[in-house]
Amino acid sequence: MSNLSISTPVQLKNVTIQDDFWSPYISLVRDVVVPYQWEALNDRIEGTEPSHAIRNFRIAAGLEQGDFYGMVFQDSDVAKWLEAVGYLLERKADPELEKIADEVVDLIAKAQHADGYLNTYFTLKEPSGRWTNLAECHELYCAGHLIEAAVAYEKATGKGKILEVACKLADCIDAAFGPEEGKIKGYDGHQEIELALMKLYRATSNDQYMKLAKFFLDQRGQTPHFYDLEYDRRNGDTHFKSLRMAKDKSYSQAHLPIRLQETAEGHAVRVVYMCAGMADVAAATGDEELLQACLSLWKNIVNKRMYITGAIGSMAYGESFTLDYDLPSDTAYAETCASIGLIFFAQRMLQIEPRSEYADVLERALYNTVIGGMSRDGQHFFYVNPLEVWPEASGKNQSFDHVKMERQRWFGCACCPPNIARLLASLGSYIYSVQGQTLYAHLYIGSQITVDLDGSAVQFVQHSELPWEGNVRFELTMDRPKSFALALRIPGWCTASDVRVNGQPVPEAAKRILNGYLHLEREWSSGDIVHLILPMNVNPMKGNPDIRETVGMVAIQRGPMVYCLEEADNGKGLHKLLLHPGGGDRVRFDPDLMGGMLTIELPAYRIQEEGWADQLYRANAEDRLEATTATFIPYFAWANRGIGEMRVWVRENTALPF
Amino acid sequence: MSNLSISTPVQLKNVTIQDDFWSPYISLVRDVVVPYQWEALNDRIEGTEPSHAIRNFRIAAGLEQGDFYGMVFQDSDVAKWLEAVGYLLERKADPELEKIADEVVDLIAKAQHADGYLNTYFTLKEPSGRWTNLAECHELYCAGHLIEAAVAYEKATGKGKILEVACKLADCIDAAFGPEEGKIKGYDGHQEIELALMKLYRATSNDQYMKLAKFFLDQRGQTPHFYDLEYDRRNGDTHFKSLRMAKDKSYSQAHLPIRLQETAEGHAVRVVYMCAGMADVAAATGDEELLQACLSLWKNIVNKRMYITGAIGSMAYGESFTLDYDLPSDTAYAETCASIGLIFFAQRMLQIEPRSEYADVLERALYNTVIGGMSRDGQHFFYVNPLEVWPEASGKNQSFDHVKMERQRWFGCACCPPNIARLLASLGSYIYSVQGQTLYAHLYIGSQITVDLDGSAVQFVQHSELPWEGNVRFELTMDRPKSFALALRIPGWCTASDVRVNGQPVPEAAKRILNGYLHLEREWSSGDIVHLILPMNVNPMKGNPDIRETVGMVAIQRGPMVYCLEEADNGKGLHKLLLHPGGGDRVRFDPDLMGGMLTIELPAYRIQEEGWADQLYRANAEDRLEATTATFIPYFAWANRGIGEMRVWVRENTALPF
Ligand SMILES: [Zn+2]
Ligand SMILES: [Zn+2]
Repeated sequence: MSNLSISTPVQLKNVTIQDDFWSPYISLVRDVVVPYQWEALNDRIEGTEPSHAIRNFRIAAGLEQGDFYGMVFQDSDVAKWLEAVGYLLERKADPELEKIADEVVDLIAKAQHADGYLNTYFTLKEPSGRWTNLAECHELYCAGHLIEAAVAYEKATGKGKILEVACKLADCIDAAFGPEEGKIKGYDGHQEIELALMKLYRATSNDQYMKLAKFFLDQRGQTPHFYDLEYDRRNGDTHFKSLRMAKDKSYSQAHLPIRLQETAEGHAVRVVYMCAGMADVAAATGDEELLQACLSLWKNIVNKRMYITGAIGSMAYGESFTLDYDLPSDTAYAETCASIGLIFFAQRMLQIEPRSEYADVLERALYNTVIGGMSRDGQHFFYVNPLEVWPEASGKNQSFDHVKMERQRWFGCACCPPNIARLLASLGSYIYSVQGQTLYAHLYIGSQITVDLDGSAVQFVQHSELPWEGNVRFELTMDRPKSFALALRIPGWCTASDVRVNGQPVPEAAKRILNGYLHLEREWSSGDIVHLILPMNVNPMKGNPDIRETVGMVAIQRGPMVYCLEEADNGKGLHKLLLHPGGGDRVRFDPDLMGGMLTIELPAYRIQEEGWADQLYRANAEDRLEATTATFIPYFAWANRGIGEMRVWVRENTALPF
Repeated sequence: MSNLSISTPVQLKNVTIQDDFWSPYISLVRDVVVPYQWEALNDRIEGTEPSHAIRNFRIAAGLEQGDFYGMVFQDSDVAKWLEAVGYLLERKADPELEKIADEVVDLIAKAQHADGYLNTYFTLKEPSGRWTNLAECHELYCAGHLIEAAVAYEKATGKGKILEVACKLADCIDAAFGPEEGKIKGYDGHQEIELALMKLYRATSNDQYMKLAKFFLDQRGQTPHFYDLEYDRRNGDTHFKSLRMAKDKSYSQAHLPIRLQETAEGHAVRVVYMCAGMADVAAATGDEELLQACLSLWKNIVNKRMYITGAIGSMAYGESFTLDYDLPSDTAYAETCASIGLIFFAQRMLQIEPRSEYADVLERALYNTVIGGMSRDGQHFFYVNPLEVWPEASGKNQSFDHVKMERQRWFGCACCPPNIARLLASLGSYIYSVQGQTLYAHLYIGSQITVDLDGSAVQFVQHSELPWEGNVRFELTMDRPKSFALALRIPGWCTASDVRVNGQPVPEAAKRILNGYLHLEREWSSGDIVHLILPMNVNPMKGNPDIRETVGMVAIQRGPMVYCLEEADNGKGLHKLLLHPGGGDRVRFDPDLMGGMLTIELPAYRIQEEGWADQLYRANAEDRLEATTATFIPYFAWANRGIGEMRVWVRENTALPF
């Protein structure tokens, strides 16, 4: 087996985002989110559960007295923050931030044991318990995040210290785990180490890290079952009260060897982190069987188990996948981290084979669930992202206990906020990739990049009106005419794209589309301009008839964005609205609405209470309807105007055949 | 205050049910259910959780060695069984059964303490814990059931022993509880003692029992809160792990004094048992304020929080009510006992004021949820009665963990089966009541009764074709012509009733309808025949627009029965069916279907999978429909043909105004 020929993302440092929609997010991450999260990690946000994450490191490093506090995976919050800082510094120097980060690096290094082991929970709480409870205790998960942070920070700053820490840690893990006699045959309950080791492998070219990643993947689900063996060795001692992690194998995707898994089961974040690692190993090794396993899981997720908002994991219990087509709107779990993990998986699949369906899913998750997971102020977050809320039921119907009506300042289990931060800080690396002499444009985000093609640097300046309008323009600059291909993704939401090169139509454009990418292969010159027109219609989307929740309903999508109804615009009782079939739409950009927002108005009917008095059920009652206008806003912007009803799926009559 | 003038149910011993539909149920209870439950109480049903209820009494009586086993309210299962036996014996002698029951009475008497206290849990497990945990431990609840059993058994057999036990127990309670100094100011977490004491009051004419019932009712929800006081006295010790019973006041309707409660909150069975007791006390004392409180709660339940099947308590968590109009079909809890309790409440309201709406609700609960809660073999039971099931999701989506797809042989918490048994065994007492010179017919169930009217006995023989057809005939026999009124309930499901006396139309029949009862007041003679024709149409029922779950859907009702779709008749994917507006219906009685069942066929469309391939969402997709027939069976008969999908609410297009 040899590695697959994959496309390589254009590196973050070579991408400058200049975009009306996204630049404010990038600034927000830099100016607000990362500083805010630093305050949170240091327990300086009032009125929220303390994080204690930095103090845990200080205590483990011997700089302070005290006890460990927080979740068993609290260390990972620091790592994710450091990773985000790495991305920010890779883009733009910031000596003050770098100084803080360097101190964090020093602190982490001090907390590391002489043999490379690094985990403040076990150091402080269970010094003799190292590697005894992989199913529950997230040791390798935390290690994985530390490694990801190290790779990002070293790349950004060139400072080797944190990478050394990471390698020492990875070597410590490698000494403990592996197929060799005497080594532990286990794997972490929460996948993360696998994709992290692959990053470390790419950063260091040390094969051993790749082998270890592959070992962890292939060990998962083998029998006799490692989690049972370690459980017995612990005499049934567990970390969490519930036996779910220790005993429910599918919760952590350990019910089958990964190559035999055809459906996404259990904890959603774990599934997609695992898949990202699988894709990394498949790409690096050319392991076709592993790639097929990735494809099976991909298909099951995106064709059977994904919300229209790109959210996954529909059940609160176990933060889990359930079964095909089970996508309830109001009890949805739909964790922000799960959509971020889906983006990681999609990006890797896209590198292995540039197919627009991967980028379509990536875009869907990004423009809807991920940015919906953070408020416009960068200081409030959703962990759970429902597609319908009924505030009155909150606190009264326990089915909705996990659903928050407003974004929260922080969480006791604070996985999501730093995950959003690191994703947005690295957004530039998701826009383009290069394979041979082809530059792929995956996302239409205004940006400037410089890449080597046909022997020397070419500059591309992308202007994009997304997500509100589908007009995109590329300006090319190069020192001499060059032959290469520009491959432009034609999004799934667009059915009639048009492309012009220097104002001229491209002959036989349709024939140039391969796997959803329009390949413009020619000799390019400085000053060439490519226009891509992606008409955005208001698309009423239907769900597959096997989805019980969406039958008879439509969701409104326009471009990459899914829209929703809110009480603020439409009053209470959103379920009483029925869209008017064939009515026109009115699309408006309102510059004053939440900093500038597109709204869609559709003619609708509203069922009236009139005639019902206090009756609960009536025979042969015709609904009384009143014509009205349903006003939609982008889903990501919901819950920014106080607590109120929201819904994505809206009723529509079915067109009868006669 | 003086007692209200109320109608009195015609006593069970004076009612002989002779009915094609109901007689088999009565025989079933006598021949199968009660014997079966006797086996269950004696732990002789293989493959089910043991009950241990009889053994608990034997151990407490000193006849056997061993430990208490089961729920803290296990005693009540024996009491409910004995109560059912009382009703059976009241109807028809059965020396063999009476012998067994007499032995149970002896056993219970032996388990009673010298001071009257009687509770095997506390006797065996916490002898010093008497009356220390009313919020959680069901002592008075068990006492209430014992009292109900005693009243029924004494009435049936004339044997005073068990009534003496009950009075001794009630006196023991009266000595412990009450407004007097030194007595406990508490009340049971699970209401039951109140309505039981009112039965004992009526059986013994001892005022003290009524006063005690009223004390318990009025004490509920007073501050300082008794449950907090006793909790503190126990130093925070609890019986159940969850603090719900001890701390969540609304769970046991103790959040407010009962006269201030306007919405049905918390555990549904407790609410309706409480309401039945409140109505009893209001009727006996003429307490108008208490009656108004009953009315408020009645209205809230039946106008805002009741399923179309007469089920109540929509949430599994706490077996509870949630909020107005929150009536999810697939996660419904809808405990069988709660509908039985609603029948208790309805019957008492009906006695206070004969209004057909009370009987309508009683009938709805009886013909749908209650008999749906037991299989046709009398040996399998539902605790939870959903209005929609999706078997594939069972075990995969935790929202449905409480929902069983098939009736169960027994339950660890076995409240429902004996509750069905005692209700059906006493069904005769729900059909008629007498107030002054008026005989009210509430239910149309073939039967023969003898009542005193205008000075001597009148015999009524009712022939009824319900629930399949709305033809009812009364034949009257008396020794001489008499003046009295026959008040016939015109059910809410019937919009065009017709009545004939001796073949002749009744002049101005509509004007004779008062509160839903058609009053035929005249001089009657032997041989008079009254025909009541209640045309049964297939009624597509709509839910109030405020019910999110039912908007755009209809439920099919015909007569008292709600119908449902099952996979057995309609294949999988019942949510894909869309009823054809205005299509005709085909009503058929199939004598071979589950012992004789009416089916309803309606023209419908089924959304096809064709064209969807593996897609999850599509833009601008027209549904492909195929004409089909939707076959409905009565809801109560669901889940008798293996595991499969079921649903009550079916999609229908909304009729647009233009
Ligand atoms: Zn998260
Ligand atoms: Zn029950």
